[in-house]
Amino acid sequence: MRYHDRDDLLLIKLPENCHTAVTLTRNRFAAAPVQLVRKHLAVQQPRYLLINAGQANAGTGEQGIKNAIDCCQYLAAKAHTGQQAILPFSTGVIGEQLPMDKIQSGIDVAFENLGSANWEQAAAAILTTDTCSKHSRETFTINGDPCHIIGIAKGSGMIRPDMATMLAFIITDACIPDNLLQRALTRAVDQSFHCITIDGDTSTNDACTVSATGQGDVKIDHDDMLFDAFCEKLTLVCQQLAQAIVQDGEGATKLVRIHVSGCRSISECRTIGFTVAHSPLVKTALFGQDPNWGRILAAVGRAPVEDFDLAKVDISLDDIAIVHRGEPAEEYLEEDGIRIMQRDSITIGINLNAGDHEAEILTCDLSHDYVRINADYRS
Amino acid sequence: MRYHDRDDLLLIKLPENCHTAVTLTRNRFAAAPVQLVRKHLAVQQPRYLLINAGQANAGTGEQGIKNAIDCCQYLAAKAHTGQQAILPFSTGVIGEQLPMDKIQSGIDVAFENLGSANWEQAAAAILTTDTCSKHSRETFTINGDPCHIIGIAKGSGMIRPDMATMLAFIITDACIPDNLLQRALTRAVDQSFHCITIDGDTSTNDACTVSATGQGDVKIDHDDMLFDAFCEKLTLVCQQLAQAIVQDGEGATKLVRIHVSGCRSISECRTIGFTVAHSPLVKTALFGQDPNWGRILAAVGRAPVEDFDLAKVDISLDDIAIVHRGEPAEEYLEEDGIRIMQRDSITIGINLNAGDHEAEILTCDLSHDYVRINADYRS
Repeated sequence: MRYHDRDDLLLIKLPENCHTAVTLTRNRFAAAPVQLVRKHLAVQQPRYLLINAGQANAGTGEQGIKNAIDCCQYLAAKAHTGQQAILPFSTGVIGEQLPMDKIQSGIDVAFENLGSANWEQAAAAILTTDTCSKHSRETFTINGDPCHIIGIAKGSGMIRPDMATMLAFIITDACIPDNLLQRALTRAVDQSFHCITIDGDTSTNDACTVSATGQGDVKIDHDDMLFDAFCEKLTLVCQQLAQAIVQDGEGATKLVRIHVSGCRSISECRTIGFTVAHSPLVKTALFGQDPNWGRILAAVGRAPVEDFDLAKVDISLDDIAIVHRGEPAEEYLEEDGIRIMQRDSITIGINLNAGDHEAEILTCDLSHDYVRINADYRS
Repeated sequence: MRYHDRDDLLLIKLPENCHTAVTLTRNRFAAAPVQLVRKHLAVQQPRYLLINAGQANAGTGEQGIKNAIDCCQYLAAKAHTGQQAILPFSTGVIGEQLPMDKIQSGIDVAFENLGSANWEQAAAAILTTDTCSKHSRETFTINGDPCHIIGIAKGSGMIRPDMATMLAFIITDACIPDNLLQRALTRAVDQSFHCITIDGDTSTNDACTVSATGQGDVKIDHDDMLFDAFCEKLTLVCQQLAQAIVQDGEGATKLVRIHVSGCRSISECRTIGFTVAHSPLVKTALFGQDPNWGRILAAVGRAPVEDFDLAKVDISLDDIAIVHRGEPAEEYLEEDGIRIMQRDSITIGINLNAGDHEAEILTCDLSHDYVRINADYRS
């Protein structure tokens, strides 16, 4: 459709009796496919996931909705199934209509070749400005029975997930009923995709799905221990995909963990973490490898959190204290700061010493390449 | 102190019986001079404003407070006045201590030469990464009597004022009591410096002062008409300074007005306006002169506003409709979008058609130079 030297359409067929749970963007300008996914899920369990990269089919009005429906109907006719058994997903430029002729030939080819691609090829077909494909796989046992979870994702710009991330598709062979699968996905997404940001821009197309085929030996029911064991691994897969998205952030040269602790709630931790993660001055200092910690302090100081006692705050860069109890740390040496800022992966620690909650936000730096990628051509 | 080819210290002497009102940053990591200004203002009317550019004296702990006090004491001794008659202001790099020797020689020279500089020279002495000085002057009559307001300001990065802007100093010859002067300043700042953003980063040193010398013919008292007439002109001066700051935004190539209307409150207008103004994707598209309006739509769609009816939203670029009632505008042509995006000054119009309130946020684009200025050397 848009990328002439590689695949940009992916079709995933799910087995019968497979359960699928989905989280979708909270952006009000939800793309046409996102609106359709909501409707279709309410009617029946999906049998096909149809994903195109290049056009987001967002901001495309009535014609966009009609095109998304046409894609589903076209595939449904080939597959002898109802159109509501198909979940469509799109990613790419907002405001362009889908090239329907090309999509239909793409569906023809993909349908013919169902089953021939491996996960790596699948992960590659959904990319846009990404520079590498993202996949994660966990094999483990629950009660002695083997269980598998595998996931693919795409995303490197317009990333500040609010409900899910750009696109992520996860499959497990566990057997797990709808309501539990949705609960597990919501918990996993909250601990992974909801904790990353590249540029603070929540996409119109975010979606994360998990499908449980039930073809393996593991059955998850209302036993809390089994459910928790499954959730833990699902969360791990989501975290690995989320981290891969940040590492491939547009123009990113560094992976930055913002670890916020000592707060009265997780939401307070995240508010502070995101304020620092979205500061263009912090992000450009990270790119410039300048231990200009005053910018971190200024961002923490403007975070919209109530009753914040500055005199208790500690801030660190990796294992080096920068601010101790609201004052510059006495033992801090500029040369230590410089050494840490040269690392590819850096943790900014912020402790409010006012509570027991903690959270970690993953982000990246803001480089010349981010501006180049987003200003020099349309993405 | 830091800039070797130009002045970087300014001393303003105020006449006796002059009234001064001040707004200061809400950043919790308020700089040492900001903390001192709060204390001194509570005790007496100021006679001197002492401003240095180069070091912010923020994040400098006890030593920073001591240095700010020492500056005031040094000047107080020369001027035979109490140290609380001096308001200190600093701007520059966070986390560096003031070079006290140089500050003291600077104070010596400035004190010797009081009265010799014009406003243009004064405006130039407080700059940091600014590329031009910012001043504004209004002469008008109230009840037939002439009145003057003159203001200078600095600021081009770490700009998202929350209470005031980086530094702005305004003088009027009107006679106006403290409480009315403070009310007038608060109103003017709310309509000017509170409506601009360059990078969303609220500084640790923001301050805006207005001093009313009472040396002219105009006397403002509790007559509402007189007060409103004065406020209007004070607001105009503040708006001109605020716009000058945005136009000189670090790396900025465009002045962007985000006009939000049809909201249920001004705060709702501003929330939407700032969400768009802080979107790196909108800002890079503006720099790239790409009418990629999908990014504006995505930013509006994620703005944290309750009960937002997408089906009523209109979005425009200057006089061209992009989105009409939540759908892409039928008459929109890409060539119109391209033509508008090439302009130096662009208005993004967003109408929720849900209420009577409106507000305008001023911002600029995000360019390669913003990254260069903030990554390549310490500012």
